[in-house]
Amino acid sequence: MSRMDAFRRRMGGLAYGGDYNPEQWDREVWREDVRLMREAGVNLVSLGVFAWASLEPEPGTYEFGWLDEVMDLLHDNGIAVNLATPTAAPPVWLTHLHPEVFPIREDGQPFGFGNRLHYDPSSPIYRRYAAAITTKLAERYSFHPALAMWHISNEYGPTAYNEAASENFRRWLRRRYGTLDRLNEAWTTRFWGQVYTDWEQIDVPHIPRTWMNPTRRLDFKRFTSDALLECFVAERDIVRSFRDDIPVLTNFMRFFRHADYWKWAPEEDAAALDIYPNPADAGSHVSAAFNFDLFRSLKGGQPWLLMEQSSSAVSQWSLNIVKEPGRMRLGSLQALGRASDSVMFFQWRASRGGQERFHSAMLPHSGPDSRTFREIKDLGREMRLLAPLAGTTSRAEIAILFDWDGWWGLEEVFGLPRSDFSYTDTVMRHYTPLWERHHAVDVVSASSPLDGYKVLVVPNAYLIGDEGVRRITEFARAGGTVLMSFFSGVVDADNRVRPDGYPGAFRELIGAKIDEYWPARPDEQFTVEFKGGPTTTSTWWREDLRLEGGTALATYADGLLAGQAAVVENRYGAGRVVYVATLLEQAAFDELVAGTVEAAGVRARFAGVPAHVECAVRGDETHEYVFLLNHSGESGASVPLEADGTDLLTGRAVTGRVELEPLGAAVVRIAR
Amino acid sequence: MSRMDAFRRRMGGLAYGGDYNPEQWDREVWREDVRLMREAGVNLVSLGVFAWASLEPEPGTYEFGWLDEVMDLLHDNGIAVNLATPTAAPPVWLTHLHPEVFPIREDGQPFGFGNRLHYDPSSPIYRRYAAAITTKLAERYSFHPALAMWHISNEYGPTAYNEAASENFRRWLRRRYGTLDRLNEAWTTRFWGQVYTDWEQIDVPHIPRTWMNPTRRLDFKRFTSDALLECFVAERDIVRSFRDDIPVLTNFMRFFRHADYWKWAPEEDAAALDIYPNPADAGSHVSAAFNFDLFRSLKGGQPWLLMEQSSSAVSQWSLNIVKEPGRMRLGSLQALGRASDSVMFFQWRASRGGQERFHSAMLPHSGPDSRTFREIKDLGREMRLLAPLAGTTSRAEIAILFDWDGWWGLEEVFGLPRSDFSYTDTVMRHYTPLWERHHAVDVVSASSPLDGYKVLVVPNAYLIGDEGVRRITEFARAGGTVLMSFFSGVVDADNRVRPDGYPGAFRELIGAKIDEYWPARPDEQFTVEFKGGPTTTSTWWREDLRLEGGTALATYADGLLAGQAAVVENRYGAGRVVYVATLLEQAAFDELVAGTVEAAGVRARFAGVPAHVECAVRGDETHEYVFLLNHSGESGASVPLEADGTDLLTGRAVTGRVELEPLGAAVVRIAR
Amino acid sequence: MSRMDAFRRRMGGLAYGGDYNPEQWDREVWREDVRLMREAGVNLVSLGVFAWASLEPEPGTYEFGWLDEVMDLLHDNGIAVNLATPTAAPPVWLTHLHPEVFPIREDGQPFGFGNRLHYDPSSPIYRRYAAAITTKLAERYSFHPALAMWHISNEYGPTAYNEAASENFRRWLRRRYGTLDRLNEAWTTRFWGQVYTDWEQIDVPHIPRTWMNPTRRLDFKRFTSDALLECFVAERDIVRSFRDDIPVLTNFMRFFRHADYWKWAPEEDAAALDIYPNPADAGSHVSAAFNFDLFRSLKGGQPWLLMEQSSSAVSQWSLNIVKEPGRMRLGSLQALGRASDSVMFFQWRASRGGQERFHSAMLPHSGPDSRTFREIKDLGREMRLLAPLAGTTSRAEIAILFDWDGWWGLEEVFGLPRSDFSYTDTVMRHYTPLWERHHAVDVVSASSPLDGYKVLVVPNAYLIGDEGVRRITEFARAGGTVLMSFFSGVVDADNRVRPDGYPGAFRELIGAKIDEYWPARPDEQFTVEFKGGPTTTSTWWREDLRLEGGTALATYADGLLAGQAAVVENRYGAGRVVYVATLLEQAAFDELVAGTVEAAGVRARFAGVPAHVECAVRGDETHEYVFLLNHSGESGASVPLEADGTDLLTGRAVTGRVELEPLGAAVVRIAR
Repeated sequence: MSRMDAFRRRMGGLAYGGDYNPEQWDREVWREDVRLMREAGVNLVSLGVFAWASLEPEPGTYEFGWLDEVMDLLHDNGIAVNLATPTAAPPVWLTHLHPEVFPIREDGQPFGFGNRLHYDPSSPIYRRYAAAITTKLAERYSFHPALAMWHISNEYGPTAYNEAASENFRRWLRRRYGTLDRLNEAWTTRFWGQVYTDWEQIDVPHIPRTWMNPTRRLDFKRFTSDALLECFVAERDIVRSFRDDIPVLTNFMRFFRHADYWKWAPEEDAAALDIYPNPADAGSHVSAAFNFDLFRSLKGGQPWLLMEQSSSAVSQWSLNIVKEPGRMRLGSLQALGRASDSVMFFQWRASRGGQERFHSAMLPHSGPDSRTFREIKDLGREMRLLAPLAGTTSRAEIAILFDWDGWWGLEEVFGLPRSDFSYTDTVMRHYTPLWERHHAVDVVSASSPLDGYKVLVVPNAYLIGDEGVRRITEFARAGGTVLMSFFSGVVDADNRVRPDGYPGAFRELIGAKIDEYWPARPDEQFTVEFKGGPTTTSTWWREDLRLEGGTALATYADGLLAGQAAVVENRYGAGRVVYVATLLEQAAFDELVAGTVEAAGVRARFAGVPAHVECAVRGDETHEYVFLLNHSGESGASVPLEADGTDLLTGRAVTGRVELEPLGAAVVRIAR
Repeated sequence: MSRMDAFRRRMGGLAYGGDYNPEQWDREVWREDVRLMREAGVNLVSLGVFAWASLEPEPGTYEFGWLDEVMDLLHDNGIAVNLATPTAAPPVWLTHLHPEVFPIREDGQPFGFGNRLHYDPSSPIYRRYAAAITTKLAERYSFHPALAMWHISNEYGPTAYNEAASENFRRWLRRRYGTLDRLNEAWTTRFWGQVYTDWEQIDVPHIPRTWMNPTRRLDFKRFTSDALLECFVAERDIVRSFRDDIPVLTNFMRFFRHADYWKWAPEEDAAALDIYPNPADAGSHVSAAFNFDLFRSLKGGQPWLLMEQSSSAVSQWSLNIVKEPGRMRLGSLQALGRASDSVMFFQWRASRGGQERFHSAMLPHSGPDSRTFREIKDLGREMRLLAPLAGTTSRAEIAILFDWDGWWGLEEVFGLPRSDFSYTDTVMRHYTPLWERHHAVDVVSASSPLDGYKVLVVPNAYLIGDEGVRRITEFARAGGTVLMSFFSGVVDADNRVRPDGYPGAFRELIGAKIDEYWPARPDEQFTVEFKGGPTTTSTWWREDLRLEGGTALATYADGLLAGQAAVVENRYGAGRVVYVATLLEQAAFDELVAGTVEAAGVRARFAGVPAHVECAVRGDETHEYVFLLNHSGESGASVPLEADGTDLLTGRAVTGRVELEPLGAAVVRIAR
Repeated sequence: MSRMDAFRRRMGGLAYGGDYNPEQWDREVWREDVRLMREAGVNLVSLGVFAWASLEPEPGTYEFGWLDEVMDLLHDNGIAVNLATPTAAPPVWLTHLHPEVFPIREDGQPFGFGNRLHYDPSSPIYRRYAAAITTKLAERYSFHPALAMWHISNEYGPTAYNEAASENFRRWLRRRYGTLDRLNEAWTTRFWGQVYTDWEQIDVPHIPRTWMNPTRRLDFKRFTSDALLECFVAERDIVRSFRDDIPVLTNFMRFFRHADYWKWAPEEDAAALDIYPNPADAGSHVSAAFNFDLFRSLKGGQPWLLMEQSSSAVSQWSLNIVKEPGRMRLGSLQALGRASDSVMFFQWRASRGGQERFHSAMLPHSGPDSRTFREIKDLGREMRLLAPLAGTTSRAEIAILFDWDGWWGLEEVFGLPRSDFSYTDTVMRHYTPLWERHHAVDVVSASSPLDGYKVLVVPNAYLIGDEGVRRITEFARAGGTVLMSFFSGVVDADNRVRPDGYPGAFRELIGAKIDEYWPARPDEQFTVEFKGGPTTTSTWWREDLRLEGGTALATYADGLLAGQAAVVENRYGAGRVVYVATLLEQAAFDELVAGTVEAAGVRARFAGVPAHVECAVRGDETHEYVFLLNHSGESGASVPLEADGTDLLTGRAVTGRVELEPLGAAVVRIAR
């Protein structure tokens, strides 16, 4: 039995709760907390995330009494603990004693005190203190009966430009390249005469400027992710050395560019996500769906954990809209529908002061007699009804490539034909038509195995290493369908243009050579005619492309490229490749995606269901659980089902159709 | 006789003149200056404001000869001197010798040389040198016959993040909190584990970052204001130790966020204002009116001094529009109408070079034969006609709360439901309908006594301490009318959310509990129906509010809060409270303000006069002086008067009505 | 025979080629390079521009073998070398050893490694190392048969705020002013009490702030230009000490504000320009034309060198549009038409990696079988046909003032009536109507002789020294026509307002005194009536102006200045002055310019040719070469010619008319 299986068994199904920070409150409040937690159905709390200063008020002096008391109190009330190592918030004495621990920012200024994550992950001093408090916690609580899980630090993220970071960067580079000659070759340092002749000459790229060696910058992103991962692994190994039968993980963030989660995930027992979709953004639930699919995919389809969300508004933005009635529940069900095994919040009780005093909580400033707490209790009740979901998952026929190297290549370096690429936007542009058509989608990296999929979607994969190229090529050769969009396969893993004409990686695959990339002027628009199909438009990007075996699926009808291919189709081995060389108007692109997926034989189980009703399925050998989530606050929907079942939320039998009110939801259990 | 009474007597009425910087010019120019000053009716000049380098060219070496000569020359020509301590502009030798005097800016960079106000107010070195030159000046000129007033330094303002500032900040915090436990409690440092265990760990919040402890930031604002005030008091005490029968003051600025003028005013003999309304801003004369009312209120209704304004354009903005013909005169009369006892300018003669070479002056680059100098002479003549105004003042039935703590709470800290609050905008939004209806308004702080007022207006008082809460509550209980707008009474003086539901300070006063603050999406608009009244709209903010004794004066007619109260009326003790929980469309809000004031029995003496004619009254036991100022450049106006009198500007009798041309003005003396 | 004459003879006409960076490639690539260069008609390459790290891999250790080989290879293939001193790109060992060489940026941060031009030009360390490598190169290659020209460093530009810069600045100031008294007077340091009493107190204005002494800032610009020039002169003198019969120069940039090219040009054998017109900017070919005219004028009409351009897109902007087919050729011909003797590119072969990997090249990533390389070869063929152009030039009857002091005065300092002056925009606004009417235009500085011109155009000459004032005044007195626009002649060379009323320098010349500058509100528009002419509008700027001998050519018909002069005409000596005191609507301004030029008797040789066909003429005693360049991609044109000739591009006789296709061109040789 895996550690996560044991954890699910202990939870008796799904986990429900949130960050609990009792150190902010007096003892009498703790009693009320626990009473209300029980009322709300809480069965797990993340404890001590920011408690370092309370646990070690002075170097080497520990105060565990209050934590003992809280752990006991929780356990006595049947609430399990996800115990945090508090290393995301070094105490002020640490940085006062060792100011060099403060991360130096890109602009050369030290980060200073007043926030959290104020440490250079490469700092040996920080690491020593972090190991010490982690060891003390593990010694004391590894076998406390409340302990169900270790929460290592919090939202790993700092990028540091310190001297210690430079030293660690050099070590990392030595491991990567072995010799300076190989580094100079990979970084193309002969350009502008930047050849390194001594490792000591290399430092972090710490001053912002207009131009920077793009591979140095790329490697610095890789290094920063790895330096943070070293911190995680060190603490994980400490707690595991005391006890190795409970899960150890950390909490990741939505679309976080600075850590390569594909590389991190294997080091954890489960992928865990903090997600704060912006209620002011009408499409935030679609990007949430993508992130949920990503987190399910990070560990090969294993259920993941929703570790933090807000009950209503957050406070970190310039405009913090509340989650309107019903939307917090819908977002929670959405995560469960995409294989989360938990719904957790930051935080249990709203703080009176401090930086996030207006961040909503399970128990808000307005107290138990409030809309928010009523919704929290209602959801707690539903979580128990949904216990059968625990441990089940889902699997798709469509995969979409989402890769940190590709992200960094497009966004972290200078000097592209245009600088306003957004990797997440392009990924969402490809994902959204699939989501709207209720297709299940897995997310893959350039290193993921692709067997079992019918369709692979490759959004703007400018930077892709040889392994990724090989996997994609083999996938197509073996009969898969590849939908690839423009500016893909341009540079190798060293950010060097692949030789012999664009797109060096995929010239044969797409059956075309690109003479030159033609970014479009603002407001320029082109007419694109599909062969035997509709006429549409495109903007933003064109490619001066010569067919080499491929055929034009669509051509430009105007402009200087009139008559040339805008969309190329190529038969490659047993497979089919569709290459989109321009930014098609969205509706036409959606149809192209839908048609490509259909042609590949992907089943459209929920065809005909309106786009505002999200359909998601998870299951196991015996049952499947069909989630129907109506994101519209105005329209209801009537959704036909192929098989009869039971709505877990109401306990009622479902035959033929499910009727959904605005913001309504159903979770239908259907026997396989 | 107070020092200011003596000063007025010496001036023979009002003061007229400007900053005079003879050190920029040769001796022969001085003669012409004095001749033209006499021609213009100047009777007071502010001398030596930036003359430190000329008075003490090297450390401890003084050159007073030129100043002696200028003082004598002025005195010989009947012009009095407002002598400045030159400490706003430390000489370059000082900062070259002691670079640590330069204020470190928020971004960590020293301020450097080339501007003025380039000192850390906490610097003991700066303070020592400033005391020395002040002492020397006082020794030499305290009894010079030209001396009429001391002008301490200039436009106090620097915020410094130096090590000396950190030390002074720690002293200030020790005085405020006594113990670290109380500081940690006030600052809520348990949040994110930021507990201080040694005073030495605290420093100024010197690096900009996204998050900062909000109370640390708030206290730093308070401290900075106090550190500057220490500088003022030190110099004041020096000059007063030589002679204590003439006024001592410094010049404040319009809407200056970084010094709490309520705390400064008691230390001065008169409040003095530098004001530069932007001619490109069509409403700048209304915000000028507010500032004039504030300055009259700062010392409890005593006449104040207009210490600096421009004759035409300034030069510090990106676009510096001229004051069109007649507008400088109108702005001057506006200040006099709101109880200023002076009209002064920066500066007498336009500089040929330097940073402000295009700042207009009484004597502009185009010389005496210029529109500007003609207007200056014309005004000088009128100033003498208005001599009877000196010493008179006015008093209002309406008070509006304007408080630096409240300002800092809304604007200086992070993490509010929305970050685009503008305290001055909200104050002006409340003040403008009163100004347009010609109501006299006093300005009060959270500590001001409120007796005597009929209406208290409370704009977005998010942060308010217990004393303010008590005063407002008592005012209502005793029969006053309170008009309060949304997001008031939320946090205490420590920036901590008041417990037991929003708005913790005023839940009983307004007769409602607020479940949650609902900032609106951009472009969201709500329909608001007044009970038995008009239907209007609101935007930007709503509150999910439950009545607890109050009644709905207006409710939302659409949106998720449809049917809930948007405006609450509550009877509290003998008083009435109107609480506005949304940002009403301006015309509807104006009507609400007007109706509330009318219902409270405030007299509308100038009802019916068009809004573009400003009406203001000052007076004493025997006479009142009615100012009628037509701000329109296109329309004339005919204003009825209740009583007959004499227009001081023309000497003509006024019976029944006053006819005003575009930009016309009258100052009617009416016997009581 | 001048060095440039000898160079032209060696080239056998025009030079064609580009930057060649063989150090980025393996030996086998070099062979292909040279073969393709010959195919393309390349006869000159700029070699070693960024090769310092390859030439001196460690301090004092040199590796010349590869360069020997490349030089020999080029020479064997008949390709001449423009050999660069590589000092624009100091090796990493230099800055690692001496970090003080890094330029400190205006924000106080060191520039760091990863770009080029990372040196403080005042650094004695940098200068020592630069002299050493320059000496070594000169020793070894001065008499290599491939050597045809020295290319000193590259695109001089860094502005540094280092301590070494401060020291050098003080030396520069001592030379300029001699005594501190004169400096204090020039800088008006009595304003705000900033009097310097010791040279050591002066430093570079290194911290950005809202206010800065405007003359200190101005002098710092002058100093920076001079400090860079010192670097150029030092290297030039070294190479010349070995051999003085070949040209020595450096490459300048388009509209580069930070070096006064008028002061640099006399130090060089030819003016050389790098130009990258933005294809996304529809008017970029007009600003290119101006820059070409400037570069011809920099050395008094001598042919100049186009040293760098791109074959297609660049990569430094946020959006890098390709040069569409035919436009690279047209831009090249445009330079030749305005007296360039070369067409050179950056760079020969596109780099695989590094900062500019997407900068297009003569040989692009897509290889020889590409649109770009085909266009390069075609142009190479045409370059040989155009060989007769070499050494010829042109001369105009119209001059336009373009002066770095004037530029700095308008843009580099604070405190003007409005801060959004763009010097290059105002110059282009004056130049464009002349370009559209096919007038030849020379560019002059404030120190250029003006004899021989009929018209002098003076755009917004806010800052102009006494010599410029004298030259312009004399030019008018002697019968010239001056077209001057507003805000001219305001301050002297010390940035001090000239006394006795605006515009102090030109009050008599324009026959008017300006009482006050009236910048306009955004969106304010004024009606302007020309005497007996059209009614038009103006915006942005007005002047409250009193005629003193001049007459109104146009007056305002509305606004507060209604009836006052908007355009003044003045007879001055034998000349005529037109002074434009407002920003006229462009079409009306164009007509005014055209009419003024016509009235001055300037010949309109190409009257009637559409504006999209650029007409330029160069020639010598025996022939003239008429360039007709159709910039329209849509319309053709039929251009009449006064005399018959031969189109060098086709070899065909031209009689009567030239027919041009869209983007078509002709270069007609006509015997004088």
